[in-house]
Amino acid sequence: MFFSEKTLINGRPSSKVSFSDRGFQYGDGLFETIAVYKGKIPFYDFHLNRLKISCHRLKLSIPDLKSLDEEIKELCSEVSQGVLKIILTRGISEQRGYRIPHNEKPTRVLSIYPWPNYPIDFFKYGITLRICATTLGHNPMLSGIKHLNRLEQILARSEWNDPQIPEGVMLDSRGQVISGTMSNIFIFISDYLQTPDLNNCGVAGVMREFILQKASTLGIKTIVKPINLDDLKQAEEMFVCNSLIGLWPVRYLEEISSYPVSTKTRNIQNFIQMWIESYE
Amino acid sequence: MFFSEKTLINGRPSSKVSFSDRGFQYGDGLFETIAVYKGKIPFYDFHLNRLKISCHRLKLSIPDLKSLDEEIKELCSEVSQGVLKIILTRGISEQRGYRIPHNEKPTRVLSIYPWPNYPIDFFKYGITLRICATTLGHNPMLSGIKHLNRLEQILARSEWNDPQIPEGVMLDSRGQVISGTMSNIFIFISDYLQTPDLNNCGVAGVMREFILQKASTLGIKTIVKPINLDDLKQAEEMFVCNSLIGLWPVRYLEEISSYPVSTKTRNIQNFIQMWIESYE
Repeated sequence: MFFSEKTLINGRPSSKVSFSDRGFQYGDGLFETIAVYKGKIPFYDFHLNRLKISCHRLKLSIPDLKSLDEEIKELCSEVSQGVLKIILTRGISEQRGYRIPHNEKPTRVLSIYPWPNYPIDFFKYGITLRICATTLGHNPMLSGIKHLNRLEQILARSEWNDPQIPEGVMLDSRGQVISGTMSNIFIFISDYLQTPDLNNCGVAGVMREFILQKASTLGIKTIVKPINLDDLKQAEEMFVCNSLIGLWPVRYLEEISSYPVSTKTRNIQNFIQMWIESYE
Repeated sequence: MFFSEKTLINGRPSSKVSFSDRGFQYGDGLFETIAVYKGKIPFYDFHLNRLKISCHRLKLSIPDLKSLDEEIKELCSEVSQGVLKIILTRGISEQRGYRIPHNEKPTRVLSIYPWPNYPIDFFKYGITLRICATTLGHNPMLSGIKHLNRLEQILARSEWNDPQIPEGVMLDSRGQVISGTMSNIFIFISDYLQTPDLNNCGVAGVMREFILQKASTLGIKTIVKPINLDDLKQAEEMFVCNSLIGLWPVRYLEEISSYPVSTKTRNIQNFIQMWIESYE
């Protein structure tokens, strides 16, 4: 069973939203998918930071942080390992149409899900990554935001069914590498840890941000830059990451390239684990 | 009041959907906004045709057409002039994540809204069109579909508040003209009625399709092709259209260009009116 185990909508236990909610009508909102360990959220500051920036960019009110904190505690305090999903939308509108209403009353949905049952082998031994045909359109005004318009990712994820291939790389409409369908991508080339810039599209994942911020403490130099398929093919190592999986090494890019998993990747993986385990 | 007056969700009167609905979680679905006159839907065949094509492209089940017909009759038979909105989503999913579930149970929302109170002057004398800064990203797999991912249009429509300017033109990320935020655009140049091709982005509106199909009966030659801002500036006439407004002549493109409204545009406007009035 993967249904949400417990849900608060605007602070009250519920499972229903109005069909007039602009989240349902237009995907007018954003979400955060958050790992909960022993009732704690080790990457909370990163999620909250992205949420605030995204609200600002979507012209959406930032939720009252005290209420949000209380609701998170209510939902998460007994969770040993689970997923907290926060959805914020522009709420019910009294008018039809795209125009943002003056009297915006946002909708806030917090729900707890079981931990996903990804095979541990993906984490330990790495994965095969495929290349998606579905591309990401350029929209600088939406890039980076984990918003509710996810048809591109849905169509990309519908391209394959092989359970042994857990992720696909998505290119933009100009052929640049952007991300996985649900993860960000990093490659090692000549001692630099590189990840695609997200100026035009893609989600700026929390784990991506964490790695970019913490890499220097591991003696790793990072670069954010345009990356193409040739760069992926020439990479010395590759991994994908998100806030639930942590980091999965990439062993194969389809049948095109294969990669080792060295201590460079393992050091980052271990650092993430240490951060989670030592978080108070 | 602009709230929906009557709503059927999967055939039953309701105003609520599950927060687990993929329409709410990801904007995973589509919609149709349909003009109702004297209990009839003059452009029904065009809406149904687009709905079927869009379902196919989004890998979404086409709803049972008999049930849909019955529900439309139930909602619309007493409506003298109103708006029927149909939303179809991929429904409630037992799993989290973008992957399309095997046991898809789509959600079907039909609701009736009052007719929008656009000033009649827009129809009679024409409008001023502005140019939006928010652009449309390229995604050939989604282009043409009236899907539920509408943040680009929402951000574009949030750029201005002047009630005297009812519409803005949206360019794609490469600077080509695509459409209005809620309408399609046509221009007359050298006796040809031209409208932007929607191979990369944009919604293929029902009124656009109607005009493209019927123009020849008015002796008008049409071309669907890439159009840029220079073409707009050089246009002899311009109009925007959708299934609710019919056709609004464009008198001004910001303060850049002005256009007359000749019998060419009026003939199309009259043809639409006649189609509506003579529809049985």
